[in-house]
Amino acid sequence: MTHDTGSAWQTYLRQHQSRFLQELVELLRIPSVSAADASVGDVKRCGEWVANRMRKAGIENIAILPTGPHACVYGDWLHAPGKPTLLLYGHFDVQPPDPLELWRSPPFEPVVSDGTITARGAADMKGNLLLMIIAFEALLATRGSLPVNVKFLFEGQEEIGSRDLASLVAAERNRLACDLILTADGMQWDVDQPAMLMSTKGACVLQVDLETAAMDLHSGLYGGTVPNALHALVELLGTLRDREGRICVEGFYDDVKPLSSEERRAINAVPFDEKAYKSGIGVDALPGEPGYSVYERAWARPTLDLNGMWGGYEGDSVKTVIPAKAHAKISCRLVAGQEPSVIVGKIEEHLRRHSPPGARVTFVRPGLEARAYRVPLDHAGVAPVAEVLQKAYNRPPYFVGVGGSLPITDMFLRELNAYTYVVGFCQTDERIHSPNEFYRLADFELGQEIYVQLLERIGQLEPGSLSAR
Amino acid sequence: MTHDTGSAWQTYLRQHQSRFLQELVELLRIPSVSAADASVGDVKRCGEWVANRMRKAGIENIAILPTGPHACVYGDWLHAPGKPTLLLYGHFDVQPPDPLELWRSPPFEPVVSDGTITARGAADMKGNLLLMIIAFEALLATRGSLPVNVKFLFEGQEEIGSRDLASLVAAERNRLACDLILTADGMQWDVDQPAMLMSTKGACVLQVDLETAAMDLHSGLYGGTVPNALHALVELLGTLRDREGRICVEGFYDDVKPLSSEERRAINAVPFDEKAYKSGIGVDALPGEPGYSVYERAWARPTLDLNGMWGGYEGDSVKTVIPAKAHAKISCRLVAGQEPSVIVGKIEEHLRRHSPPGARVTFVRPGLEARAYRVPLDHAGVAPVAEVLQKAYNRPPYFVGVGGSLPITDMFLRELNAYTYVVGFCQTDERIHSPNEFYRLADFELGQEIYVQLLERIGQLEPGSLSAR
Repeated sequence: MTHDTGSAWQTYLRQHQSRFLQELVELLRIPSVSAADASVGDVKRCGEWVANRMRKAGIENIAILPTGPHACVYGDWLHAPGKPTLLLYGHFDVQPPDPLELWRSPPFEPVVSDGTITARGAADMKGNLLLMIIAFEALLATRGSLPVNVKFLFEGQEEIGSRDLASLVAAERNRLACDLILTADGMQWDVDQPAMLMSTKGACVLQVDLETAAMDLHSGLYGGTVPNALHALVELLGTLRDREGRICVEGFYDDVKPLSSEERRAINAVPFDEKAYKSGIGVDALPGEPGYSVYERAWARPTLDLNGMWGGYEGDSVKTVIPAKAHAKISCRLVAGQEPSVIVGKIEEHLRRHSPPGARVTFVRPGLEARAYRVPLDHAGVAPVAEVLQKAYNRPPYFVGVGGSLPITDMFLRELNAYTYVVGFCQTDERIHSPNEFYRLADFELGQEIYVQLLERIGQLEPGSLSAR
Repeated sequence: MTHDTGSAWQTYLRQHQSRFLQELVELLRIPSVSAADASVGDVKRCGEWVANRMRKAGIENIAILPTGPHACVYGDWLHAPGKPTLLLYGHFDVQPPDPLELWRSPPFEPVVSDGTITARGAADMKGNLLLMIIAFEALLATRGSLPVNVKFLFEGQEEIGSRDLASLVAAERNRLACDLILTADGMQWDVDQPAMLMSTKGACVLQVDLETAAMDLHSGLYGGTVPNALHALVELLGTLRDREGRICVEGFYDDVKPLSSEERRAINAVPFDEKAYKSGIGVDALPGEPGYSVYERAWARPTLDLNGMWGGYEGDSVKTVIPAKAHAKISCRLVAGQEPSVIVGKIEEHLRRHSPPGARVTFVRPGLEARAYRVPLDHAGVAPVAEVLQKAYNRPPYFVGVGGSLPITDMFLRELNAYTYVVGFCQTDERIHSPNEFYRLADFELGQEIYVQLLERIGQLEPGSLSAR
């Protein structure tokens, strides 16, 4: 960060930093585990803590908006007429801390040490949530107003899939209306290198259940005479991808738009260290769809993976049985243009058509379906946000994608007609969702400054230019 | 049975039948579960019961021969110089009775009802064991001598794979020397139709463990860029058999002798009801190696089956993971000429050669290896035994095979240079190894008469003619 020592907000941040850290410790002490029924009260208490903290920062119209088991917290400051309206989104719930025995300190007793804070939710995302409120407070406290309208929406069920968020947003379309959404629920490339997330993938899943007989059969009595569910499944699943990694489901690529040369250039500007990538995860080869770089495959090409497969005897030693049933779980990562339910239908059709003789195939759709999301490289907010990041890090950001899904981004786009930019400050090594999750205090402070500057910089844009239309 | 009412032994059997049934009840009350460590004392007590019963029948030189946790019981009667020596083999241990809750009466409290006796071990094989002793007793009691030398070997660990029998037989080759072995540990085709078992298959097993990465990977981060252990396993296992059922392992069929036309004629003389076969087990098709009938495939052609396959996530709903490990259990049923360890080696070699890029394949050999066994159709005892069965049932026996293994037959052949004929009286519906195992008392009585006649008829053969050389 290039410190502009003359700014009053910077002085404010420096002077209050030990309070902010104390607040973060307080917030992390609340075990707001949304997945645990027993923690409903803690999630509620956490929402109330956040609401109070927002109030203290000067945020107005605080409201608890009921959604399913865990309510959302809303607040706004709307005194910048003619300026853009930003929606700052985040979540105050956390992943379960299990397995507890792997934590070196209790997950809800934060430990500050060596410039880090260790606790469940430290990186994902209580630190990142708090810094958005702090940035607002610093500007308002030092200037008495902001150059932009701001709305806040913090939810308590992100870690269980934001189950009720879409219906809330649909019902509260007016209250939540905005030109752009920012969320700090994300990460930078590394501590020295900023990154902007330009695309996430969609997803769809399918379970295949295959049956060949009414019961498992003794291989000594029936071997060589009856269909074996495992061989049938192997034959069937073998038709899904070719040996090089192309997906062979009929029509799978129909709605995939080819990558533009700008997109390929942006993706391939991100350095890729094949040796480090392989050794980091212990793989010997990087097979995949021919004609695309690793990052192009990871970020911009649809994929299909078997996630689980089972049938017959899995125990010790031997059971010479001919299994009657076999199962597989399949998931796809989709790109913009692919409709998840259509893709699931095509996979079912493909598997039906290729079923071997004697195999009865049925399907279960576990229901996870998400659309891909993509911010156009030339969207009006991209260059200004990149500028803020470049100033903070002394380096231009990488424009990256992830193969994962972020269903709220597509949901916000459809419901609010606004893009979501992810500008968050976790790092990849911070063990989010794992024991001993931690967060760097330097990033906590840097994030506060960057959000101040984002609020200022976005306030300079024409609201109409940010439209997703 | 054509009752030859003039025979003293028949009268003897009729007069003592209620005692024999009482003895069977007593024998079944002993819970001689060889698999249960807690039952070592019961198995021992059962062996002593058998030894006493043999002594009562007039069998001499009774000896308890220590083998592993459960001893064998030996006895003989060798007063027929110049006549063949028969070894009657059986076992007095039983399968565990679990699951207990499915039994309609306690498994070790025999219930006699409607011409059957229900208890664990009734059919497999305490009834069949006892009838061999009874047949001997009936002949000796009514004639004072037998036309054949008889040795008895009853073991207490057949249900745990006859673990120590081979080393006992090797060590006691002289004591056990014989011209032919008979065992009642088997079944007839049905209550009206006799059958002679002419072949059993060998077996070998292999577990394949495949790894593609050091850990499971998030499909949203790594999808499309790394090998997936399940896809690699599907690709690899897909090379084992072709779509029609031929085994594609290089060299797999090298040592398989083609079926002679006599063998094919004997196999195909057994009526096959395709509709009943399919509906009985709920299969829609009977795929298998082209050019062979169902019974030829089941009894006389080697097979390869996946017995289990697993990897990745098997739970509810969804986990979008790229599995790093995948596993499969493979077993083969082998025919005469195929050496199990050689076949396992060929499968390993095949799987190594066909491993996809990035897949690290290792193997576990769980150790089950058995050779196939075959009695030549023209062996000197076959026709006489068939004659006895034909007389008892008024029908010639079918000459059948099974795809299962009976390792003791090959072991006896190698150690004692004698064939084993299986002439037993279970029926396929008697739920052996399952809850509510039962045995037909009519078969118990018929078996006694048939064994008397087998002792008589085999006594008429030249000992040298029975040699397996």
